[in-house]
Amino acid sequence: MNGDQEMSGVPDDPGPQGDLRAGAEPRATPVITSVRNDRVVAAAGLSSKKRRDATGTYLVEGQHPVAEVVADGLAEVVFATQDRVDQVQAMSGADAVEVVVVEDHVMERLADARTPQGMVAVARQRRGTVEDAVAGAGVAVLLVAANDPGNVGAVIRTADAAGAAGVVLTAGSCDPFNPKAVRAAAGSTSHLAIAIADDPVAVVVAARAAGRRTVALDAAGDLDLLAAGPHPGGDLLVVGSEAHGLPDEVVAAVDAVGFVPIRGRAESLNLAAATAVALYAVTGG
Amino acid sequence: MNGDQEMSGVPDDPGPQGDLRAGAEPRATPVITSVRNDRVVAAAGLSSKKRRDATGTYLVEGQHPVAEVVADGLAEVVFATQDRVDQVQAMSGADAVEVVVVEDHVMERLADARTPQGMVAVARQRRGTVEDAVAGAGVAVLLVAANDPGNVGAVIRTADAAGAAGVVLTAGSCDPFNPKAVRAAAGSTSHLAIAIADDPVAVVVAARAAGRRTVALDAAGDLDLLAAGPHPGGDLLVVGSEAHGLPDEVVAAVDAVGFVPIRGRAESLNLAAATAVALYAVTGG
Repeated sequence: MNGDQEMSGVPDDPGPQGDLRAGAEPRATPVITSVRNDRVVAAAGLSSKKRRDATGTYLVEGQHPVAEVVADGLAEVVFATQDRVDQVQAMSGADAVEVVVVEDHVMERLADARTPQGMVAVARQRRGTVEDAVAGAGVAVLLVAANDPGNVGAVIRTADAAGAAGVVLTAGSCDPFNPKAVRAAAGSTSHLAIAIADDPVAVVVAARAAGRRTVALDAAGDLDLLAAGPHPGGDLLVVGSEAHGLPDEVVAAVDAVGFVPIRGRAESLNLAAATAVALYAVTGG
Repeated sequence: MNGDQEMSGVPDDPGPQGDLRAGAEPRATPVITSVRNDRVVAAAGLSSKKRRDATGTYLVEGQHPVAEVVADGLAEVVFATQDRVDQVQAMSGADAVEVVVVEDHVMERLADARTPQGMVAVARQRRGTVEDAVAGAGVAVLLVAANDPGNVGAVIRTADAAGAAGVVLTAGSCDPFNPKAVRAAAGSTSHLAIAIADDPVAVVVAARAAGRRTVALDAAGDLDLLAAGPHPGGDLLVVGSEAHGLPDEVVAAVDAVGFVPIRGRAESLNLAAATAVALYAVTGG
């Protein structure tokens, strides 16, 4: 039991070179061997929304998403297993980021994925205002009370793919920086302005003022989005939760309630698929 | 402990009226109180592919999907909790189906959902041939080595929504009658001809012979599916696994490799979203 010995080599060699194991190349930082290490505890704590909100940071894992937050200057630190250190240090922008080497079991504690890819970054959240999201080019998306992190992440990824400037979530939605949402977004969390709004109707009003068509997505709508195509001023696509749909006051505030036509016997599309088809329809499908 | 007492009321009242509890209306069948009851064991066994293959049946849960297999004459038996019996017996076609009442904990054993909706049907699998799938109207889908049940179910649901006649899966794919795939398909599993094929290239050849355009879906493709639109003879959309894409021999056999354009910074769309956008593009987006 050496749970309190947080860095291997520290008792014998407290110098800056850290752990010099047989066969290992010298590294600038020692290898963290314990999940009780202060920095590991602080990073692992970012699985809690309270800690993410307090620090304005979140966890990013996987080679491609980590490379992007490093390149975009959003990474504060990257934890990596020994076999992935070279890959991290070769990333564009990595010279400005501290790389901390951890043992595999420490990586398992930091990573949300069942099969961790050997690197996790602590990154600053890319937040935007409602104005950023609705004033930019491309479609914008408003998610109202979206409480499934997988759906939130999938919509962020699809919005990014469709060229959206931003995504707005109402305060009752799940946190877009939740690890499951971040994983489903596959890197897109750091590409868009993500804004949180208390009042969805105010977002609709702001989008209309910016010249956008505001369209609620609902299977019972009357605007066939595939037939309608894009709007010259751009669209705000308003999406509710899979279970509860959209509140009446939001439906009353939008320009149109749009739907994706069902051509077969399916009762509906799932939220992520319907949003994907709708986003591509209003961006020039 | 009355685990071996499979039907409440049976020791005291073995007659056809079964359990007459205080306040309960008389029912044609007694209430099953034990998960060891033979019929419950047989139905719960359908979570295994081996048992599904041996019987040609699968489990369907939730009010809407159960009502559909009952209406379509595909249900062999419906298990329901006492509070859902009236709802099941009011379904179109229910007079031809046995309804078996079970206690809540028995329903939990039969249902895959975390919050069971109080009814589970044992239904006959609606299988089709490759010829059914590629010769019918509408788009057809070929899933090659698709090993994620959630994706398989989502693609079946979206194919149904887009009006597909059938879905073909290669032998290495996960079973479309797997409970997680069935749940993601939200009832569509019983709407389409579902065929299993050993050789994906033979399916492509059959679809071409039937006059279809055969299109592999790949982010690195050269046919923009949104710009190309539908083909007069209909399409066969060929989709690989999220992790491994499509085998070379399949890509070599198709008429075109199609993609959904990425307008923002996302690296790609997830498989279910890409398939949804592609299916609507080739069915008259």
